[in-house]
Amino acid sequence: MKFVQSAEMENILRTELKESVKIIPLGGLEQIGMNITAIECGDSILVIDCGLSFPDDEMFGIDLVIPDVTYLKENMDRVKGFVITHGHEDHIGALPYILQVINAPIYGTNLTIALIENKLKEHGLNNTVKHKVVKYGQFINLGCFRIEFIRTNHSIADAASLAIFTPAGIIVHTGDFKIDYTPVYGDAIDLARFGELGKKGVLALMADSTNVLRPGFTMSEKTVGRTIDHIFAENQKSRIIVATFASNVDRVQQIINSAYKYDRKVVIEGRSMVNVIQTATEIGYIKIPDNTLIDIEAMKNYPEDKIVLITTGSQGESMAALSRMAASIHRKVTIHPGDTVVFSSSPIPGNEKAVAKVMNELSMKGANVIFQDTHVSGHACQEELKLIYSLVKPKYAIPVHGEYRHRTAHGELAESLGVDKDNVFIIQSGDVLELNEDAGKVVGKVPSGGILVDGLGVGDVGNIVLRDRQNLAENGIIVVVMTLEKYTGRVLAGPDIVSRGFVYVREAEELMEEAHLVVEDAVYSCENKHISDWGKIKMVVKESLSDFLWKKMKRNPMILPIIMETE
Amino acid sequence: MKFVQSAEMENILRTELKESVKIIPLGGLEQIGMNITAIECGDSILVIDCGLSFPDDEMFGIDLVIPDVTYLKENMDRVKGFVITHGHEDHIGALPYILQVINAPIYGTNLTIALIENKLKEHGLNNTVKHKVVKYGQFINLGCFRIEFIRTNHSIADAASLAIFTPAGIIVHTGDFKIDYTPVYGDAIDLARFGELGKKGVLALMADSTNVLRPGFTMSEKTVGRTIDHIFAENQKSRIIVATFASNVDRVQQIINSAYKYDRKVVIEGRSMVNVIQTATEIGYIKIPDNTLIDIEAMKNYPEDKIVLITTGSQGESMAALSRMAASIHRKVTIHPGDTVVFSSSPIPGNEKAVAKVMNELSMKGANVIFQDTHVSGHACQEELKLIYSLVKPKYAIPVHGEYRHRTAHGELAESLGVDKDNVFIIQSGDVLELNEDAGKVVGKVPSGGILVDGLGVGDVGNIVLRDRQNLAENGIIVVVMTLEKYTGRVLAGPDIVSRGFVYVREAEELMEEAHLVVEDAVYSCENKHISDWGKIKMVVKESLSDFLWKKMKRNPMILPIIMETE
Repeated sequence: MKFVQSAEMENILRTELKESVKIIPLGGLEQIGMNITAIECGDSILVIDCGLSFPDDEMFGIDLVIPDVTYLKENMDRVKGFVITHGHEDHIGALPYILQVINAPIYGTNLTIALIENKLKEHGLNNTVKHKVVKYGQFINLGCFRIEFIRTNHSIADAASLAIFTPAGIIVHTGDFKIDYTPVYGDAIDLARFGELGKKGVLALMADSTNVLRPGFTMSEKTVGRTIDHIFAENQKSRIIVATFASNVDRVQQIINSAYKYDRKVVIEGRSMVNVIQTATEIGYIKIPDNTLIDIEAMKNYPEDKIVLITTGSQGESMAALSRMAASIHRKVTIHPGDTVVFSSSPIPGNEKAVAKVMNELSMKGANVIFQDTHVSGHACQEELKLIYSLVKPKYAIPVHGEYRHRTAHGELAESLGVDKDNVFIIQSGDVLELNEDAGKVVGKVPSGGILVDGLGVGDVGNIVLRDRQNLAENGIIVVVMTLEKYTGRVLAGPDIVSRGFVYVREAEELMEEAHLVVEDAVYSCENKHISDWGKIKMVVKESLSDFLWKKMKRNPMILPIIMETE
Repeated sequence: MKFVQSAEMENILRTELKESVKIIPLGGLEQIGMNITAIECGDSILVIDCGLSFPDDEMFGIDLVIPDVTYLKENMDRVKGFVITHGHEDHIGALPYILQVINAPIYGTNLTIALIENKLKEHGLNNTVKHKVVKYGQFINLGCFRIEFIRTNHSIADAASLAIFTPAGIIVHTGDFKIDYTPVYGDAIDLARFGELGKKGVLALMADSTNVLRPGFTMSEKTVGRTIDHIFAENQKSRIIVATFASNVDRVQQIINSAYKYDRKVVIEGRSMVNVIQTATEIGYIKIPDNTLIDIEAMKNYPEDKIVLITTGSQGESMAALSRMAASIHRKVTIHPGDTVVFSSSPIPGNEKAVAKVMNELSMKGANVIFQDTHVSGHACQEELKLIYSLVKPKYAIPVHGEYRHRTAHGELAESLGVDKDNVFIIQSGDVLELNEDAGKVVGKVPSGGILVDGLGVGDVGNIVLRDRQNLAENGIIVVVMTLEKYTGRVLAGPDIVSRGFVYVREAEELMEEAHLVVEDAVYSCENKHISDWGKIKMVVKESLSDFLWKKMKRNPMILPIIMETE
């Protein structure tokens, strides 16, 4: 396996290659992080997916993160289009932002395009951007590329793998996938087509690394339907509330099936759940029997044991419907003893504590919380990956969609299935990997990574602001203000000190008085020494106050001295 | 099962009970949260454990949380002593703080007391507080209580369950426990004694709820030793680094055993690891063969494949040794390709992402990261709990040490084993549960919960300060300062605006200029209207700036107007 270090890369000399293709991941390569990859050949650039990611814990106040597409912007005339593998946020979420900069047509399957259309409408872009529905098996031509959408399975309907025919050879990109021989909607993954491509000869396989550390096979979505049906059978006397991912339309369909079977009305709650179900129903991907769906306002007209509520909030998101119910701040639903609440989901890494909190709150209200065997993953485990490698038999393996440790484990798996050690590429975001049938090499680096979105501001919060926010969060701030007389530098007002997020001032009056004295001493010592340079005065104030507080309390608040001058 | 709601409790009338005992959990009842419980009878109060907890994500800047012992303080003369079940931080960590308020003798087993002594020394309390080592099977008398320490198993040596003989009957408290028939050090849990007590008749069982959702049995600690030995056998050519919990002395012993077997020198790294191993070695709980332990400085004198490093950092704690190695900021250890790094631990809920981050960093440096089958829990699963209930046959079940959802599941398990539904008490922190052989009832509520420790400040950071810190973290702060002339109220200097954690000012110069104009307008409108009330001026400034920023950016920074006046 070849580990490509960025220091090394700078020194790699560009060697002469045959007809070649470049693969450039622009977003993160991690599971839930901004999937976006440029494929480049001659004067054509093709973009696969265009996702966003959600902020890490230390990205205080950030709403979402979108990929840095400087490279695409600089080569805008060569960008032929976006091909989208499926409709999850980490694959489509950044489109409304990126399309404002790079206007190129979008291609995807039916549900994928329907979900993208919703987004474009929200951002007023629906009429300015060309987008087109592609069927499985259909080819589209974009510049020197010919792209085929291949049927696959995932935790959202209409997921596609891609075969990209390039002058340098065929690249197969699995997208996010699993092998489900008995899917709820549509057919199983088109394994035969993967095999056919393998027989033709595939240059490179870019496959999903999410579950590479898990042995065996991911269970079929249908098994969840059976568990849900069992829960309905066992809890016929109670109201049932099921939280799941809004985008998992097959899951929602199965819940609706059980509701119909047990003669319950279905209420949909949570903005994204309502949106996705409406979209999926419009295009016929969810089938709701007549008189089954009722409005949340009509719930009171039915006995509770004739209701099932399908809701958002399965990840413990604080503003989602289920979390609001658990915290007793939902306007229309009150949890009470006897309710059965099903988490048809598993926590995305990082959400474990938030989910447990909601479960505890629900338990405290007397609800029966069920979360075992009520979810299956949408990603392939080891045996599924082995099957794909055995069918596709790629020359090069480029693990994608996983943390670094997943991608390296994936690389080892590829080796164990016959891919040459030197032909496994564990690349990083921004790497330019050039491949042809003779060799592969990282030949450069382009800008990549995340642009932070805070409110309407895109990219105006950077590292300095984040560092300040972190410091403010941990220690609070003390503002020291004073006014100096123009020309004389005499202190006319202040120094006053005001704090926020430091201590509760009423409880610490004495301390704040002492701190005030320390600041006064510092200011007067400057006056006595005729120091008039504001920078110096600020520094003296800052240092003496900071020393005092550290000695006294072992704390380090941000200290912000402000000096004003009379007009 | 009886759910006791706090609203309800207020109204519960105190009924006449026979000779009775009160059980009052004062800390949280959760797994890693401040274990401390008062047992009260007549004029005697006994305190079981005295732990701390670590801050939640939203407790910005807080170092640790200690229990509110107002109730003990108010009844100080009745507190006869502390009995400590084992030496984990969530059971002993608050002692140095609480003992400064309530000086009562401490009782515990050998290792437990040794670890407490370290703490007392650190806080200069070693000579002022009486502490005594108790043996398994030994009884101590404290007021009207007679307490027996019973041998049990856990992820730290010398863990004890307690039998508390009270005038109202026997209370059995398991402490944190598992059943390990083949422990590494010492003997298996004294199941026969639990049976004997059961035959005598036990009033109440307070048992560990941590793993109640897991079916089956927790594996023996010895199984980890076998895995570790296997890892040593398979990786004879590489340096081995093992991260684990400092307090798990049996785990450390097994790593040392494998090191000796494979002729490697052992290096101990990380402050708590060094402390605990030293303490455990002194009292003979860890046996290190001669010439096995070497100083980290001596590491360079040996080939790398003759070294094993035992280190802290298995939870991804950012300042721990392993995290510093992974981030290339450890002064003495540099990770390189070929290193084998073993996580002999599993992430405590909430630490999953931090652990994954460290694993990724290690992988990026080429290390082989191993984390499967390298850890077993220290807590009893369902079958173990069933065994304990079947031996002890308590009249009342009081599940402890688990989130609410764990305690309710534990309650259901107790019912399934024959405890009467009405005799299961899911109580909350601060509840006063009164029990005698006829009945049990929550009869009151005492102050309880967490006191926040930030630096040297204990309790001076409360909700207002935390709310400010959260607001500062998410949105930053804009300070608006101005100086008014005394008597006339004329603006002499300012208004100036300064921001931190809001936007990077250089990138947003135009915005900040506009904001400045908005503030100036607000101030002059007050001047023109002859508004001299500072509160009103501040309000006008705050509202106009806040409106402007929300409309312009959809952001809500904290706005802090400061008005000064000339002398």
